[in-house]
Amino acid sequence: MVGFEKAANAITKASLASPNNAKTRLSPDSVLNLAQGDPTAFEPYWRNLGDKCTMVISGSDLMSYLSDMGNICWFLEPELAEAIRHLHIEVGNAISKDRHIVIGTGSTQLYQAALYALSSPDSSEPISVVSAAPYYSQYPPQTDYLRSGLYKWAGDAFTFDNDGPFIEIVNSPNNPDGTIREAVVVNKGKGWLIHDLAYYWPQYTPITHVADHDIMLFTLSKCTGHAGSRIGWALVKDAEVARKITNFIEFNSIGVSKESQLRAAKIIGVICDGCQDFESSKSDTNFFEYAQRLMAERWKKLREAVRSSEVFSLAEYPLDFCNFIGEFTKSNPAFAWLQCKEDVDCEKLLRELKVMVRGGKQFEADEMYARVSMLSRDESFNLLLEKLSGIKGGGTINGKRM
Amino acid sequence: MVGFEKAANAITKASLASPNNAKTRLSPDSVLNLAQGDPTAFEPYWRNLGDKCTMVISGSDLMSYLSDMGNICWFLEPELAEAIRHLHIEVGNAISKDRHIVIGTGSTQLYQAALYALSSPDSSEPISVVSAAPYYSQYPPQTDYLRSGLYKWAGDAFTFDNDGPFIEIVNSPNNPDGTIREAVVVNKGKGWLIHDLAYYWPQYTPITHVADHDIMLFTLSKCTGHAGSRIGWALVKDAEVARKITNFIEFNSIGVSKESQLRAAKIIGVICDGCQDFESSKSDTNFFEYAQRLMAERWKKLREAVRSSEVFSLAEYPLDFCNFIGEFTKSNPAFAWLQCKEDVDCEKLLRELKVMVRGGKQFEADEMYARVSMLSRDESFNLLLEKLSGIKGGGTINGKRM
Repeated sequence: MVGFEKAANAITKASLASPNNAKTRLSPDSVLNLAQGDPTAFEPYWRNLGDKCTMVISGSDLMSYLSDMGNICWFLEPELAEAIRHLHIEVGNAISKDRHIVIGTGSTQLYQAALYALSSPDSSEPISVVSAAPYYSQYPPQTDYLRSGLYKWAGDAFTFDNDGPFIEIVNSPNNPDGTIREAVVVNKGKGWLIHDLAYYWPQYTPITHVADHDIMLFTLSKCTGHAGSRIGWALVKDAEVARKITNFIEFNSIGVSKESQLRAAKIIGVICDGCQDFESSKSDTNFFEYAQRLMAERWKKLREAVRSSEVFSLAEYPLDFCNFIGEFTKSNPAFAWLQCKEDVDCEKLLRELKVMVRGGKQFEADEMYARVSMLSRDESFNLLLEKLSGIKGGGTINGKRM
Repeated sequence: MVGFEKAANAITKASLASPNNAKTRLSPDSVLNLAQGDPTAFEPYWRNLGDKCTMVISGSDLMSYLSDMGNICWFLEPELAEAIRHLHIEVGNAISKDRHIVIGTGSTQLYQAALYALSSPDSSEPISVVSAAPYYSQYPPQTDYLRSGLYKWAGDAFTFDNDGPFIEIVNSPNNPDGTIREAVVVNKGKGWLIHDLAYYWPQYTPITHVADHDIMLFTLSKCTGHAGSRIGWALVKDAEVARKITNFIEFNSIGVSKESQLRAAKIIGVICDGCQDFESSKSDTNFFEYAQRLMAERWKKLREAVRSSEVFSLAEYPLDFCNFIGEFTKSNPAFAWLQCKEDVDCEKLLRELKVMVRGGKQFEADEMYARVSMLSRDESFNLLLEKLSGIKGGGTINGKRM
């Protein structure tokens, strides 16, 4: 069963708050779906902007398949390409100058496109795809659902000992555990790297360096919170790789929604304007500063709730200087990687609290871990804190023995 | 090389008109790209609507991945589902009541999702995928680019003689040749059918019956001309098949652009309103009537140009009663399937005229055929007529011997 479908089945309709409705009216008995990283936490920021970020599309706009036939990625709207380059320059998280930009329907589609681009149709064996455990639970099914003859999932990069060629996915900060990652097997040679930098933004982690890798994947979902737009982008050094990634998107969906592209350009433009005002002290806040404060506040509250529960624990993240914020900050990941006492199934324990999460085994980790979204709306997050605080030492929920 | 990429490489930048610019300023020497079916012919209709079809999206709209967790297709916006059902009822081209609707990033993504849904992960061999030649040139690469172990392209349905299970794609009206199709091998048993009905709309062919098949694929691109939105939909009888199609889209791209979904709902709503006014004689035109007249007019002009060329010929389509228009009409396909005299390579001949098309071989047909888009903007279409009329008998272009 697939992630979102599983969530849909488990949530009874009676307790399901409408996802498009910001006022969710939860009761203490409501089922909390924190299994996906639905980034609705940032909605208030965008609501407060009023019509600064409003987009108008007329009936005859954007009708063609084609956007920019002079570009390798011929379906990329030039104003989105420009906005993306500008954003990376403002944030300082990745080199975008002289890089090819290829757009995808979320970075999910680009992950698959990158596997396609790095594998060879002439190879007798599918190339092995690895990532260091615990790794994003969707990498294995997204790699294997079509039983491709080009590439196949080969599990934990730490234990990979095949002599053949391989692709390593480096997800940094890492989903689920928020750690900063580097490639672990590439030195064995014959390896290609894909850097999934979905969470390398100031709200989640200090921006310590300008990333400069062969293929870097980003997504609007985690950057600005606009998951519904399904916009991802790849920054690619090599023209031939960019061309193959583009080919995949052409085979897979003949391009990417132009409405979403233009909206992404608008949203990113507003963020960049805010960054410039922030630098010049014309404004004391911008999107990333707002989001960083929000995440830091949530993590503080979560750590308090976890401490009072006596059942869970959380790793500490190191303090580091964030070049963007201009201060020492700690990581405040988009997911909490919650750890239970030994021999406790963390997902199961949370299910009894009616909190839906993904259990450790889905990430090739122990079941004492579970991944909990930190990006829900305020009301859901506050209910999570309440539920977690209710668990006392020895595994009782609200005084009742587990 | 991929279709669009090939076109991009062949068109010199100097002669390339901006696709977003309705005023293309072509010269007789311009390269005409009629290799894809970019449906820009319908732009004037939408431009004339003024702001009737204008959509406004604010910065905090559509942020969630989720749309309708009570529906199998959890990422489908309810108002788009309703608009699609309504559209099919108005046009009378397919049964939408009691059918599951699954949305995709164009029908291209849904074609692949349907293959996934109909194949079995437990099978030792990939299932054969066939279609009657001449068939859509992109079916083979879209089936085989990932070398899936679930399904593989097996060519012309007419010559398929494998005893194993198979999937037959029935494309009706057929791309490239505009013919009305029925399944050809399904009676041999063990066969699944996918009906690709992208062109079963009044502007292209008489609507003679309400289609009622297990899986029917449609796309906004060919229906309304909004190719840039990348919105396709499947009408599916069986819940389990709809669920597997949905699973594919979740693995592939975690849903479909919500901006495009809402815009599609708006556009379809405007069309449906126009249909109701048309029926009640409150209006003497609606989108489909406009588009049907446009296509009929273009086909009349094309046939005149072809007759005067003495080099090309075109098949005739039968007259049939269109339940929607309420008159006997002929098919006016989205592509002309141009036939040259024997031993003439039609694509090559057109390339010398600087008209880019797809040659017959790409459709498993003879090279004496080529597929030419009938959906370009007026200026391009008129230049095509000029170029075709310039070819005289014996293969001369403007008096020059070929």
